[in-house]
Amino acid sequence: MNVAGIPYRTIRLHADGASVEVIDQTLLPHEFRLVHLRTLEDAVRAIADMVVRGAPLIGATAAYGMALALRQDASDTGLARAHAHLLATRPTAINLRWALDEIHAATVHVPPAQRATAAYRRAAQICDEDVALCAAIGEHGKRIIEEIAKHKGSSPVNVLTHCNAGWLATVDWGTALAPVYKAHDAGIPVHVWAEETRPRNQGASLTAWELGQHGVPHHVIVDNAGGHLMQHGAVDVCFVGTDRTTAEGDVCNKIGTYLKALAAHDCKVPFYVCLPSPSIDWTIRDGMAEIPIEERSADEVRLMRGLGPEGKLTSVLITPPNSPVANPGFDVTPARLVSGLVTERGVCAASANGLAQLFPERVSHK
Amino acid sequence: MNVAGIPYRTIRLHADGASVEVIDQTLLPHEFRLVHLRTLEDAVRAIADMVVRGAPLIGATAAYGMALALRQDASDTGLARAHAHLLATRPTAINLRWALDEIHAATVHVPPAQRATAAYRRAAQICDEDVALCAAIGEHGKRIIEEIAKHKGSSPVNVLTHCNAGWLATVDWGTALAPVYKAHDAGIPVHVWAEETRPRNQGASLTAWELGQHGVPHHVIVDNAGGHLMQHGAVDVCFVGTDRTTAEGDVCNKIGTYLKALAAHDCKVPFYVCLPSPSIDWTIRDGMAEIPIEERSADEVRLMRGLGPEGKLTSVLITPPNSPVANPGFDVTPARLVSGLVTERGVCAASANGLAQLFPERVSHK
Repeated sequence: MNVAGIPYRTIRLHADGASVEVIDQTLLPHEFRLVHLRTLEDAVRAIADMVVRGAPLIGATAAYGMALALRQDASDTGLARAHAHLLATRPTAINLRWALDEIHAATVHVPPAQRATAAYRRAAQICDEDVALCAAIGEHGKRIIEEIAKHKGSSPVNVLTHCNAGWLATVDWGTALAPVYKAHDAGIPVHVWAEETRPRNQGASLTAWELGQHGVPHHVIVDNAGGHLMQHGAVDVCFVGTDRTTAEGDVCNKIGTYLKALAAHDCKVPFYVCLPSPSIDWTIRDGMAEIPIEERSADEVRLMRGLGPEGKLTSVLITPPNSPVANPGFDVTPARLVSGLVTERGVCAASANGLAQLFPERVSHK
Repeated sequence: MNVAGIPYRTIRLHADGASVEVIDQTLLPHEFRLVHLRTLEDAVRAIADMVVRGAPLIGATAAYGMALALRQDASDTGLARAHAHLLATRPTAINLRWALDEIHAATVHVPPAQRATAAYRRAAQICDEDVALCAAIGEHGKRIIEEIAKHKGSSPVNVLTHCNAGWLATVDWGTALAPVYKAHDAGIPVHVWAEETRPRNQGASLTAWELGQHGVPHHVIVDNAGGHLMQHGAVDVCFVGTDRTTAEGDVCNKIGTYLKALAAHDCKVPFYVCLPSPSIDWTIRDGMAEIPIEERSADEVRLMRGLGPEGKLTSVLITPPNSPVANPGFDVTPARLVSGLVTERGVCAASANGLAQLFPERVSHK
């Protein structure tokens, strides 16, 4: 999508044909800077430090990370090491493993001398596929917004979203925000409540930024405010993304998603999860029991970074120095609270049956 | 309660017999500083700028604010002006109006020359009454913790609280934290999940600080994490405060409380609201329809204040400069989600019947 009028993707192969260019998302919304990944270690750090984040973009970066690794060491050992090293960066997103397995499958039976080339080719395909998946999700989700708009007269459709599942979380378009962009571009009036999303503020820093760059009306709210807005009829529909969804429709997403799903259910606001099928973990059923939840650094809660008085990025301490902190990164929303899953193949119920209707080839494999 | 080993109340008459000493809560947890209120305007500013906050402490400060005003101008006009001026500081907390009406009643029929003295006397009583109410709430709430402790062996009882309804929100003891202090002092192992409470972070800055000063084990968590902890059995009971509770038990409290009540209900975790009876608004029934919700400044969301790199209190901007912000300060938790109200007279159901059993004299007035 556009940044200051220029179209970007979140990740691309540099003109040198080897290094990979990504947007440093830790500097947004205050600074827009591209950084180059040149080695496996660069890719590992970019994922672990959340220079790139969002399940689909993590997958795409890991794919290119494999290619960077194979340029350095294309042996079987090098291939296995790169796979293991990248897989260890983030435990929750399923796309990471999916993308690594894709590159592994595309290279393991190829002579070492050709492995890097094969990896770059497959990584580029994964990126293009992600763009196509997200665009399709956007079209299906747009129809939901269109239906709501019919009953709103000239008032905008109010969408609530948590965290950032916009184009910055993918290669382009986004998942949860793809329907918003498609609707906005089609001239349907739409307004987004962008939840701040503590502790890392991806909503305030990324979602608000990318919506602003694209000209989509929005307000930033704290995470605490979403329920109140739903109680008062100020939310027509919720769209969120997911880091991993089970074969029965339990949705793992950024911490706090479960609370908004509860409020939506209580206030009869439709709650949709937008996901490309690589975010589905067909091997598990019970999200609460089977998805590992990443416990992240206490400093994410203790320190807040923003633009300081002299225009410099500054971190400030916001907790008592001796108070300990717990920081689980994700939660699981039970399928019963989800109105529907918006996938690249259409919208289905958040259930084994619903998913089976859209992805019959997956069910027959069991 | 104690600060660095010295017992404090949040508000007291200074030794000069005229000015009023309060803790500047905007500086916590980084700096502990007492400030003097000498005029009506000082008191108005202290409440409006949240130097003091918490429904009971707002009431106590407003009471002393009336006394300060009457020292300057004890005429009928002066009395009415002080009442109106202080009432306009915060629209949601009911204790504010209650305390102002108490002072008004104690002074309006007294000759102007004696009004200030009468106001100081009634303000001091309001403070002492608040301490007694909170201590009684603590004893009733302690029994809930004691019951849970019987089934926990040597593990601590895990309490989740939102915002700050500790002693800093009252004159002493607190409302939601009074049971915690009473249990802790009685040797019952107790651990508190202190929710950060965006946008003003009263949980991270005040609740964690006062628990730490008193030696109560606790962790700070972001507001998004409470539901996840309840899903995983890490919360035994929730205690929160309230700014106003209706005659039918709807609970208005800091924004985000509703979301935690939903999660507690979904996870079968008991959810108690601790309140002195001056927080009950006997004149209204439907909290959603009848309680005005304060819309606060966008800067509370856009800017975050904390301790900067050189040990100076610093504000940093955390949203895109052009993104608008919405900032409702409170939400209403419907009575159906509340397990019980913990008052100074005991615990009752959050309903007209429940309240009538504890406060029969109030019902007969209708």
